[in-house]
Amino acid sequence: MFATFASNEAGDRIRLLMKAYHIAVVGATAPVGQELLRVLERRSFPVSTLRLIGSARSAGKSFRFRDQSIPVQELTDRSFDEIDIVFFSAGGEISRKYVPVACQAEAIAIDNSSVFRMEPHVPLVIPEINAEDARRHRGLIANPNCTTAVTLMALYPLHRAFGVRRTFAASYQAVSGSGAEEMKMQNEGRKIMHLPEFRASVTCVRVPVYRAHSVAVNAEFERPVSVEHAREVLAKAPGLELVDEPQNNRYPMPLSVAGKDNCEVGRVRVDCAFENGLSFWVSGDQLLKGAALNAVQIAELL
Amino acid sequence: MFATFASNEAGDRIRLLMKAYHIAVVGATAPVGQELLRVLERRSFPVSTLRLIGSARSAGKSFRFRDQSIPVQELTDRSFDEIDIVFFSAGGEISRKYVPVACQAEAIAIDNSSVFRMEPHVPLVIPEINAEDARRHRGLIANPNCTTAVTLMALYPLHRAFGVRRTFAASYQAVSGSGAEEMKMQNEGRKIMHLPEFRASVTCVRVPVYRAHSVAVNAEFERPVSVEHAREVLAKAPGLELVDEPQNNRYPMPLSVAGKDNCEVGRVRVDCAFENGLSFWVSGDQLLKGAALNAVQIAELL
Repeated sequence: MFATFASNEAGDRIRLLMKAYHIAVVGATAPVGQELLRVLERRSFPVSTLRLIGSARSAGKSFRFRDQSIPVQELTDRSFDEIDIVFFSAGGEISRKYVPVACQAEAIAIDNSSVFRMEPHVPLVIPEINAEDARRHRGLIANPNCTTAVTLMALYPLHRAFGVRRTFAASYQAVSGSGAEEMKMQNEGRKIMHLPEFRASVTCVRVPVYRAHSVAVNAEFERPVSVEHAREVLAKAPGLELVDEPQNNRYPMPLSVAGKDNCEVGRVRVDCAFENGLSFWVSGDQLLKGAALNAVQIAELL
Repeated sequence: MFATFASNEAGDRIRLLMKAYHIAVVGATAPVGQELLRVLERRSFPVSTLRLIGSARSAGKSFRFRDQSIPVQELTDRSFDEIDIVFFSAGGEISRKYVPVACQAEAIAIDNSSVFRMEPHVPLVIPEINAEDARRHRGLIANPNCTTAVTLMALYPLHRAFGVRRTFAASYQAVSGSGAEEMKMQNEGRKIMHLPEFRASVTCVRVPVYRAHSVAVNAEFERPVSVEHAREVLAKAPGLELVDEPQNNRYPMPLSVAGKDNCEVGRVRVDCAFENGLSFWVSGDQLLKGAALNAVQIAELL
């Protein structure tokens, strides 16, 4: 059995030679889980075997992956035996209970829930920003909040150029809800950007949009900013596209980023209420960069 | 003819005795115009005669007001003869051309367009905030931008209590558009609140909502603030309802304010990125407080 090798060097060597992994997806029938399958396929992730895991109710359903039809298995304490990497996207309660089970089975867990994100020993990773943090994992890496991920894709390159001090942000998120997530951008942003003093005041709002989150951001920087310089920085940032032609009514829109890996940023302008301030608008697919894509990118770092 | 009295004291006395006015609505067939008719009716505004004015294309249509069917007349240079108060809600170009014609005819114009709002001699009025400004009119009073009006309904009472310094705001406006209005909150806010130093950084966003605008506001004040004190202030403010029970998922929503005269404010919380800061969420019907209701309230001041 593969898992018997997994805890020793020989196992690591064998896996390296094979360059293919035994993968499990917990929450395989839900939107993020389904998106994970498509991202793994599309990015030709080296999957040796794929185990789809769901609730008792979902067990028996099956989904296509590459040329195979794979049945959903019910989640149990043995679900992670022989698994190298497991993606959790079945909500906080499942993660709280089963991430430790997966770690015990020596699978590396990539968790999409918020449960472990702020634990000091758990890396919280956006590969374009803090890939190096993933390397110090102890079997668990957390995937950030969807709105945080989309926002930081644009904020971080600006931070590198100008030094971010604080941010006001208002989100335009798909589907209905009530904004219980508002401290996540500050808390997770501090951890991901390694910026303990970063302040983010956020209003999370759900809007009647099918897919993709957008965020209106006002950011204050330590150093003087110009729109021209900011646009140059954003145009070069990985995972991000600058869409900023207000004169042609071209700016990021949920509809245009839905289904796209890259986030889009635009409406970059000097902020009239800060000294060194910029306002901008960023949109991203919350199932992709906000969840499945980022999780697979983390797996690719391993 | 009534208009022959209108420019002298005798005319003023007669009008006072009659306590009913010759009213015209320019743009009577458009949404704001239609809402104006309903507001005039609902508030039992003392209408002696009502003239509905529209484009050549609309002429001949008719609308019910109280028990009468009133035909739409085509807009001409004679449309304001014998009129006491005329509401303009047919867009900037019509206002630019015909407000001077109305003033010439000695009708008092209440203009919903942005054309004259920032003219120093034109009062820009939200009756709950600066009713006294209406009294120094010279025949024309401007109605503020819809998003500005909704925001200031909550911001102004907080300003009175704590002294507002600057604001970051992101709007959630009905119907699609591209945010050409973003300096209006600062410019109009300075004028309405008599606060020449007020700074407002705004992102205007249209969302797929049928009716009512909402605004996420972060406001910095001169004096220390508390959520409790802010809620007390907002609960007592005219034209505003405090709807703020996050634990019961009760907060202002576009659906609940649509068709309502009062704006709603809620989600009041300490702003984590300001020293003396509050964040809140305000919703209001943009056809009512954002347009028709405010216009009729201005007329009521006269």
